[in-house]
Amino acid sequence: MSSSDIFTSEVLGTMVLVLLGGGVCAAVNLKRSKAFGAGWVAIAFGWGFAVLTGAYIAQSSGAHLNPAVTLGLAIKGDTKWSDVPVYMGSELLGALIGAILVWIVYYSQFQATLREPEAVEQKNANPGPVHGVFFTSPEVRKPFLNFLTEVIATFVLILAILTQGLVKDADGTVGLGKLGALITALVVVGIGLSLGGPTGYAINPVRDLGPRIVHALLPLPNKGGSDWTYAWVPVVGPLAGAAAAAGIYNLAWG
Amino acid sequence: MSSSDIFTSEVLGTMVLVLLGGGVCAAVNLKRSKAFGAGWVAIAFGWGFAVLTGAYIAQSSGAHLNPAVTLGLAIKGDTKWSDVPVYMGSELLGALIGAILVWIVYYSQFQATLREPEAVEQKNANPGPVHGVFFTSPEVRKPFLNFLTEVIATFVLILAILTQGLVKDADGTVGLGKLGALITALVVVGIGLSLGGPTGYAINPVRDLGPRIVHALLPLPNKGGSDWTYAWVPVVGPLAGAAAAAGIYNLAWG
Amino acid sequence: MSSSDIFTSEVLGTMVLVLLGGGVCAAVNLKRSKAFGAGWVAIAFGWGFAVLTGAYIAQSSGAHLNPAVTLGLAIKGDTKWSDVPVYMGSELLGALIGAILVWIVYYSQFQATLREPEAVEQKNANPGPVHGVFFTSPEVRKPFLNFLTEVIATFVLILAILTQGLVKDADGTVGLGKLGALITALVVVGIGLSLGGPTGYAINPVRDLGPRIVHALLPLPNKGGSDWTYAWVPVVGPLAGAAAAAGIYNLAWG
Amino acid sequence: MSSSDIFTSEVLGTMVLVLLGGGVCAAVNLKRSKAFGAGWVAIAFGWGFAVLTGAYIAQSSGAHLNPAVTLGLAIKGDTKWSDVPVYMGSELLGALIGAILVWIVYYSQFQATLREPEAVEQKNANPGPVHGVFFTSPEVRKPFLNFLTEVIATFVLILAILTQGLVKDADGTVGLGKLGALITALVVVGIGLSLGGPTGYAINPVRDLGPRIVHALLPLPNKGGSDWTYAWVPVVGPLAGAAAAAGIYNLAWG
Repeated sequence: MSSSDIFTSEVLGTMVLVLLGGGVCAAVNLKRSKAFGAGWVAIAFGWGFAVLTGAYIAQSSGAHLNPAVTLGLAIKGDTKWSDVPVYMGSELLGALIGAILVWIVYYSQFQATLREPEAVEQKNANPGPVHGVFFTSPEVRKPFLNFLTEVIATFVLILAILTQGLVKDADGTVGLGKLGALITALVVVGIGLSLGGPTGYAINPVRDLGPRIVHALLPLPNKGGSDWTYAWVPVVGPLAGAAAAAGIYNLAWG
Repeated sequence: MSSSDIFTSEVLGTMVLVLLGGGVCAAVNLKRSKAFGAGWVAIAFGWGFAVLTGAYIAQSSGAHLNPAVTLGLAIKGDTKWSDVPVYMGSELLGALIGAILVWIVYYSQFQATLREPEAVEQKNANPGPVHGVFFTSPEVRKPFLNFLTEVIATFVLILAILTQGLVKDADGTVGLGKLGALITALVVVGIGLSLGGPTGYAINPVRDLGPRIVHALLPLPNKGGSDWTYAWVPVVGPLAGAAAAAGIYNLAWG
Repeated sequence: MSSSDIFTSEVLGTMVLVLLGGGVCAAVNLKRSKAFGAGWVAIAFGWGFAVLTGAYIAQSSGAHLNPAVTLGLAIKGDTKWSDVPVYMGSELLGALIGAILVWIVYYSQFQATLREPEAVEQKNANPGPVHGVFFTSPEVRKPFLNFLTEVIATFVLILAILTQGLVKDADGTVGLGKLGALITALVVVGIGLSLGGPTGYAINPVRDLGPRIVHALLPLPNKGGSDWTYAWVPVVGPLAGAAAAAGIYNLAWG
Repeated sequence: MSSSDIFTSEVLGTMVLVLLGGGVCAAVNLKRSKAFGAGWVAIAFGWGFAVLTGAYIAQSSGAHLNPAVTLGLAIKGDTKWSDVPVYMGSELLGALIGAILVWIVYYSQFQATLREPEAVEQKNANPGPVHGVFFTSPEVRKPFLNFLTEVIATFVLILAILTQGLVKDADGTVGLGKLGALITALVVVGIGLSLGGPTGYAINPVRDLGPRIVHALLPLPNKGGSDWTYAWVPVVGPLAGAAAAAGIYNLAWG
């Protein structure tokens, strides 16, 4: 498949992933949203079905949508190393566009949350819910432990994706396929429910970095800083987890 | 397939879609319902499984159930333009019947919600929950932004449906099939969780217009107006989103 | 398939259906349960996955588990009329055993709910939550409307089951199969979320009648009456809904 | 398949099962977790998707992940008795590692829950939520009834797994396959929702025993005892339930 085919597919798929993933955080956390307060079950299913939708749209390029997936498949040998840059670049670009679309869809809700009259008057506007739409933040800030959490959560995701090739489907396909995309999406729901508590589970470098860049650039009132000191954790952690998963995979079944 | 086959299938499928979709709004929002207060997760899954059930019932006609789907498939070239009128007419008729069935199933709950003695006495009955059963309303009323939200949400839905044909299933089918219907239903759950917060996600012209017409005609006490000034948004927005998705699809993969 | 094969399969499948279905009502409504107060989403998914589990176990007999399903399939012509009595009898027997198993699993929770010292002393023990484990009750008691609600909800279920045969799967099967069982289970979740609000959605005569008989016989303290005046609604309503669905099916696609 | 292949696959799969299963208990019950208070629906889906993820990873060995599954398949004749020790040993080892990973991922949350200053000062720290991460406890402690609950819940699980072989899939496979793994995972969600209320549903000896051993050894502050007097119930109950299910299976369909 050509680089431009990969580019088109991964940009669109990752755009939708981040649009729906950021969208559910906005839906649950921002004021004047019908889903306000819907809780962690909504967040976890929302991100899982964001993966499902993006994976469905990007199936022609294998639906990586995530540099950690690309890295894991490259180490395993399913993706050519020469294709890695176009995959990762497309994923980041898609994430940037997706975050801008979240801002458009929830424009009024961002305004309602950030421009509360009393909070603005007392100069104590709380940008926390808005941050949660664009980037992850740990509940207890201990970078090394937060890093380990991202490593372990991504390890689970990538190991589950890599083992799909182990048993060929009866229909002869080895890739995810429709059913594989569905199961992977539910695995992501599971990782969110089970391992998302400490850090908000980035498990995908561009899902965090893309929207963080958009947050830094967007003209949002009272938006606060973009927490760049933490930004390395949700980038390096998932890549390290993917490498660990691919290493274990190659040792165990390679 | 003949026009009358399309008609039968789409009327029954869309009827069930709107019966279950309006039903979950009634179940969660009306008094004296066992599901009262079950929240946004119930709404989003309820609408998704409404799509699943309707899609299952209408599979012999491809289960459009939605003029936005019909338009997208016609632009892509999967549906003949000469079949578009019978699809869209059947969908609207099904939606009208479905909304009447919701009124029958939840008759006592409508009465309990609209005829609260104190509210009636003080002439401040709140028809909001009942409106939510029949048509969407934005949380923050800014028609152009609300329109954009419906465009983007429907764009995601239609792009996910159109890309299904990209990768032929091992069994040779190109249409949705059972598994495709299931995944599409979960995509709808995801759109509801993620993009439903600002406007209540019509993403389907007849799902909003059909029940709105029924609301205008039904003899409900204290029912309030049917908000016709907003009615164009959930009709035009989804059609525009479908056209955008089909255009992008044809550019990217056509 | 022999009558004794049908008998074994349907007894075991319906037993598990009612065990899990009654179980989730006990889990959510009885005191001293870890799931106490988990709400309507838990109820609807619990009943849906009860159908999935029972359908999986009873797949060798087609997994009717429900006289309304048996009636619908007989009218359509997929089930022989001479097999109907053994199906229905097995289903009722399975439901009776399943209800007894619920009583064993939740024995301590029934005691905790029915033997609250203060309530017993004041002779106002509330058997409502316990009734909800064994049989359905309408929120607003208007038998004809309640009957219509059960008719419409069961109509949706049976129509979705009957239309499965319309489109043959690529693998040549016409029955439910694993994927069909999964989708039917999610349809049941959807019916629960959307149409369960007024009556608690029996949509299955034996799911209501079997446990009601067990409730009448079990030595539970302060258990109250078994509400036999309502018992015809969840028996006759689902059968009428199944007949209507099969009639519509035969008119539309027969 | 060689013993070392079984060992690798079952250790990794059970490790992930217990990591995600213990993880969701930590996510919902420990302080300073983003999912704190997400409730029983989160727990039940979290455990179900933990099974899905582990089953996916361990598909090359059939994904037992549970000595009750191994015992049931051995009695049915699908697993060789000579393979039983390596299966069960691998499962226990995987559970031990998984519990340690939960401790790493939620390290800060364990500290926050167990080291609340006031509680520590008054010497009434409540280790209950932490116990729930590592082992099950009954709501009402009546060992024989608790044992029966575990027997019945595991009976349902194993019967559903064993009956999968009854109807060969069109693709010729008899094992779980991807779709079977998905359905089994949803069956586990259903068992959790429906039968988990009284005891917290171990339904798997190593899922309880492994983390209990880790709890006894880990240097957690104020962690309380490891409740060894109850430890036999979630080990013997599931094994007895599996034997009963396999016996019924062999009588009914063997």
